[in-house]
Amino acid sequence: MKIYLAGPEVFLSNAREVLDRKIDLTRRYGFVPVSPGDLEVPATDAKRAKGLAISSINERLMMSADMIIANLTPFRGVAADVGTAFELGFMCARGCPAYAFSNVLGDHYARVSCLHDGRIEPDAHGRPRGPDGLAVEDFDMVDNLMLDGGIEARGGMVITREVAPAELYTDHQAFEECLRQAAAKFLL
Amino acid sequence: MKIYLAGPEVFLSNAREVLDRKIDLTRRYGFVPVSPGDLEVPATDAKRAKGLAISSINERLMMSADMIIANLTPFRGVAADVGTAFELGFMCARGCPAYAFSNVLGDHYARVSCLHDGRIEPDAHGRPRGPDGLAVEDFDMVDNLMLDGGIEARGGMVITREVAPAELYTDHQAFEECLRQAAAKFLL
Repeated sequence: MKIYLAGPEVFLSNAREVLDRKIDLTRRYGFVPVSPGDLEVPATDAKRAKGLAISSINERLMMSADMIIANLTPFRGVAADVGTAFELGFMCARGCPAYAFSNVLGDHYARVSCLHDGRIEPDAHGRPRGPDGLAVEDFDMVDNLMLDGGIEARGGMVITREVAPAELYTDHQAFEECLRQAAAKFLL
Repeated sequence: MKIYLAGPEVFLSNAREVLDRKIDLTRRYGFVPVSPGDLEVPATDAKRAKGLAISSINERLMMSADMIIANLTPFRGVAADVGTAFELGFMCARGCPAYAFSNVLGDHYARVSCLHDGRIEPDAHGRPRGPDGLAVEDFDMVDNLMLDGGIEARGGMVITREVAPAELYTDHQAFEECLRQAAAKFLL
């Protein structure tokens, strides 16, 4: 079984090293890793053409995979990386088992509450809202309900851990727990 | 042709009014609108069960649609709403035409640069990085390359406009341009 390894690790300065470690761990649990960066990006003239080429490669890699493990650790704000969210939706639509992890324990509600210094109040219908008037999802979920819901509907789960801030994108224990759970379900 | 209307408008205090306006505009361009909130959420005991029920309904609505128009206007930070990104990926995997809009003109690179007060520097390989060491995509794209790439690969486009701050999620002109483009391509 091939697992697509989605996550913002591609943006790290030591991305190659971190991706290689995830690839190695995936093999160790009996799966075939499919990782962004597995295929070479063709030379292109314009910036945009290069971005499109990478997107096309990643889509092809996803189409070759049977499962996804998505890193939903918050990225540049309160939510997961949107590229990872796109890929999770993509694999869910293909009917693939989906697992995810986050190296932050606090759920979506806690993070948005923190963003607003705790100023979340119920509106007239009892729906929690921030000072900007936007509703705050309060569903005991790690991120937006489409992400948690898509994973659960495909028999997967989201593993969360609190790690040292410096290891936010490089601690692999929650990722490894996803591999362990997937192996127990699909390989034993 | 049925269009799924994805976006963070569901979080607005006047969500019903804004969604109804989008539904009305979609019909006016000759399409059948499919909108979050079209189906009633069954009563549930626990918070999480309710979130799962909404996710399941939205997935069903997407499965009934032939196309997506996604609102990628930045939400609680520099990037699009992750729920919308998930849905865009979902519809792209189904091979559906995808359009999107943003009511902010600045592209992904400009927004992340602004987040870091302009402190983006090329690394040894010429790749732009913020002070946090994370690479910043510089591909002349509205958001993460998977989103822009997925849309372009399915023949769609991203329309951007600058609107008054108070109209960030309620100005429908860019959305309407998506409808116009889609109608010209699929209905004429």
